Amino acid sequence: MAAKSEVIKEILERYKTIWALNHASAVLSWDREVNMPEDGIGGRSLASAEIAKLIQKLMLDESFVKLIDRAEEEKDFTDVEKGIIRMLKRDLKFYRRVPPEVVAEFAKVTSEAFVAWRNAKERADFKTFAPYLERIVELSRVIADKLGYDEHPYDALLDLYEEGLTSRDVDSIFSTLEPGIRRLLEKLEARGWPKSHPLEEEPYDRHSMEAAIREVLALIGYPEKRFRIDVSPHPFTTGLASPFDVRITVRYPPKDFREPLFSAVHEFGHALYELQIDEALAFTPVGTGVSLGVHESQSRFWENMIGRSREFLLHIAPILRRHLPFLAKYSDDDLYYYFNIVRPSLIRTEADEVTYNLHILLRYRLEKLMIAGEVKVADIPALWNEEMERLLGVRPKNDAEGVLQDIHWSHGSIGYFPTYTLGNVIAAQIRHAMGKLDEMIAAGKFNEIKEWLRERIHRWGAVYPPKEIVRRATGETYNPTYLLNYLENKYK
Amino acid sequence: MAAKSEVIKEILERYKTIWALNHASAVLSWDREVNMPEDGIGGRSLASAEIAKLIQKLMLDESFVKLIDRAEEEKDFTDVEKGIIRMLKRDLKFYRRVPPEVVAEFAKVTSEAFVAWRNAKERADFKTFAPYLERIVELSRVIADKLGYDEHPYDALLDLYEEGLTSRDVDSIFSTLEPGIRRLLEKLEARGWPKSHPLEEEPYDRHSMEAAIREVLALIGYPEKRFRIDVSPHPFTTGLASPFDVRITVRYPPKDFREPLFSAVHEFGHALYELQIDEALAFTPVGTGVSLGVHESQSRFWENMIGRSREFLLHIAPILRRHLPFLAKYSDDDLYYYFNIVRPSLIRTEADEVTYNLHILLRYRLEKLMIAGEVKVADIPALWNEEMERLLGVRPKNDAEGVLQDIHWSHGSIGYFPTYTLGNVIAAQIRHAMGKLDEMIAAGKFNEIKEWLRERIHRWGAVYPPKEIVRRATGETYNPTYLLNYLENKYK
Repeated sequence: MAAKSEVIKEILERYKTIWALNHASAVLSWDREVNMPEDGIGGRSLASAEIAKLIQKLMLDESFVKLIDRAEEEKDFTDVEKGIIRMLKRDLKFYRRVPPEVVAEFAKVTSEAFVAWRNAKERADFKTFAPYLERIVELSRVIADKLGYDEHPYDALLDLYEEGLTSRDVDSIFSTLEPGIRRLLEKLEARGWPKSHPLEEEPYDRHSMEAAIREVLALIGYPEKRFRIDVSPHPFTTGLASPFDVRITVRYPPKDFREPLFSAVHEFGHALYELQIDEALAFTPVGTGVSLGVHESQSRFWENMIGRSREFLLHIAPILRRHLPFLAKYSDDDLYYYFNIVRPSLIRTEADEVTYNLHILLRYRLEKLMIAGEVKVADIPALWNEEMERLLGVRPKNDAEGVLQDIHWSHGSIGYFPTYTLGNVIAAQIRHAMGKLDEMIAAGKFNEIKEWLRERIHRWGAVYPPKEIVRRATGETYNPTYLLNYLENKYK
Repeated sequence: MAAKSEVIKEILERYKTIWALNHASAVLSWDREVNMPEDGIGGRSLASAEIAKLIQKLMLDESFVKLIDRAEEEKDFTDVEKGIIRMLKRDLKFYRRVPPEVVAEFAKVTSEAFVAWRNAKERADFKTFAPYLERIVELSRVIADKLGYDEHPYDALLDLYEEGLTSRDVDSIFSTLEPGIRRLLEKLEARGWPKSHPLEEEPYDRHSMEAAIREVLALIGYPEKRFRIDVSPHPFTTGLASPFDVRITVRYPPKDFREPLFSAVHEFGHALYELQIDEALAFTPVGTGVSLGVHESQSRFWENMIGRSREFLLHIAPILRRHLPFLAKYSDDDLYYYFNIVRPSLIRTEADEVTYNLHILLRYRLEKLMIAGEVKVADIPALWNEEMERLLGVRPKNDAEGVLQDIHWSHGSIGYFPTYTLGNVIAAQIRHAMGKLDEMIAAGKFNEIKEWLRERIHRWGAVYPPKEIVRRATGETYNPTYLLNYLENKYK
């Protein structure tokens, strides 16, 4: 898979410095979440900001830009070489089109907005956050205009997180998912599918749970010399020198052991993607997962389609019982229903796999309206509450459990949420394309599953754009029918 | 202490990027020793090398160099401003005078030499390492010539680790220390001072020892929000964003709990230096400890002059007894003699405070001879063994416990060893200048001790050169008499 063209070789040689800065930047972020003493934050923020500016400067260096422009004129590129140029052009497009003043202003506003959001959420009062969100929406609109779009300004923002994704794609996905999920919820309601379980209230010993998680992940199999698990306030995965150094984090709330268990399996799915990227792509612009949506498809595939299956439960129940003595009181059926409670609720991060995408739909609609200027920020909380009631039949008592629950908008991440649903959709497509997944899980054929993913998705890194990698892996582009089929089949 | 000159403000603004890269580089090194999965090494080495090249490039940027040259012409600088220019000129001198090819060649040779040294040590065979050491000596000589010196090429190398230190200074120190220490050793031999203790053979529980170390350091007092303790194969301290984020590491061999205990107190001394640097100096070229020797004076002061004193023992014995049940068999006198065994031995890192400086003298003499071209590398092992016998009365059975024991030469660090002895010398000068140290320890007045160090040494960072900070703190330059007095008094 290595690059052969002379101009590409020269580009990759120059790119090493940018890779090094990206690597350093990722280590600084990982360390901030996992290790950094509290007072280190000032220096760390300064360092990260300076390194971001330096990356931009190196990317826009005249001789480097010329090299990339020259490469575009060449013919007979391999797929890898095309991917390298495509990824560099993506970065360049942003740096060239969005003026540094806008980037700086956006960074300033979002850093203030984060503090305002935290305070507003604490007091459950949207009004103090509203001016910041207004400014973020305005600046996002400016960025969208600078980047350009065909149909809707929101498309320019979507593309930042998911190359090539448009609101037309997302509308099409939700036009199938929304009625389908609501139909399924009605059926579950009628049949009395469990909405809660006593295990949610069971406290557990953190060290026992850590040991259980290590055993569960060892059962699936991970490379000891390239992987580590740590603790942080919000679970995440980071590929520092993919595929040679990939790390996940887990958090341990005092009760309800589903959270650490399934967030570990979720992050493992992300990690496996990075770990299985072809080594020849390392330290190049394509040596990374291609997009948030494809990444999320990997994490949700392992978390839900494998992790919460009956077949997987048969493997992990003995491990969990060995480490968590209170499970003696509960049957495997108890565990299965506890793992698969379906309960329309207010908080996205606590949502089950059936209701989750309705939370995303709500956010998607509001974001699109805001970016189109079709709704005032001041009207968002009321809209949120109405739509929540319409979609899920629950209504927030206050803004903290409503419109203020997510950190994303305060970070300026508008256009990010749809990649969560896209991930669920792609995961189900993969499940279908793979064939008899449940039987493979039952037989413990995790290596076969990993090999399938490696060969069709992981090894390619960012060589192909998201839509193409999905088409190559599953034979079609985004198709939400498989997600509905999977859910209907599982919860019937 | 803040800078007021316009040109200095401009320099500091530009320097932030270099500071950020130094910070990133330090985090990458810390992470490599403490966390990094094994296979991450390739990417990490690439990243560190690229960042080092980038720092050099930014330092040599024409407009930055011009700014520094312009600043030199200004009058009426504050001491801080003078320090900033002095430190930048030091770095610039190296980058300007030593050609990049020499730096690259040195990096290549030392990275190969490290592997060769490890293999040679394993097989206890100097011959396979000799060609690498020859090349390192040659290149060090080239670097010395490029940097320039007044009397001896070795002085140029010393100055890299300890600004302004010359072989004349080191000769003068050893001309007092060598006879004094040898006299003291003879007396101890005659009086039968303990050369071993059964506690050296006691295994301990690692987690209990970790807890004991945390209590011992808490007794001295450290800022929780700016400090952390980890585990690594070789203990070290790193000031990541001094004074806001300082970290030490400890290692835990299976027996002989002195090692983790005193290495923790040693590293704490280093950490305290960084932690007490004036906050106004943060993110500038003077916001760091000034030199290896002054740094080592801080670690040895806490490790030996406080840590191994009878007065300190009274504070920590109850802590140790609580965590290490096997201590019930031993008296406080046992602990004191165990902590202060004096035993001429082959290995520097295991040496006690009396014999330690003779190990350094041996290395200093050989290094100076090699750099002067007055001895062939092939003759070094024999010289080592002879000198070892003459100085300490012990003779290595093979090269592994002789000339190959230290990693330093394989790293190309020639001129580094003397800073260890300089640290011991300065520590004793500080002890004398401080006045009644033992009484302060007995009374638990650790805050007063820390305040003395803060006010006279730590807060200044690298504002003054090492000799000046020592003169300001102790009223004189390097004077080894206090170290001899301290040792003679302690072991009488």
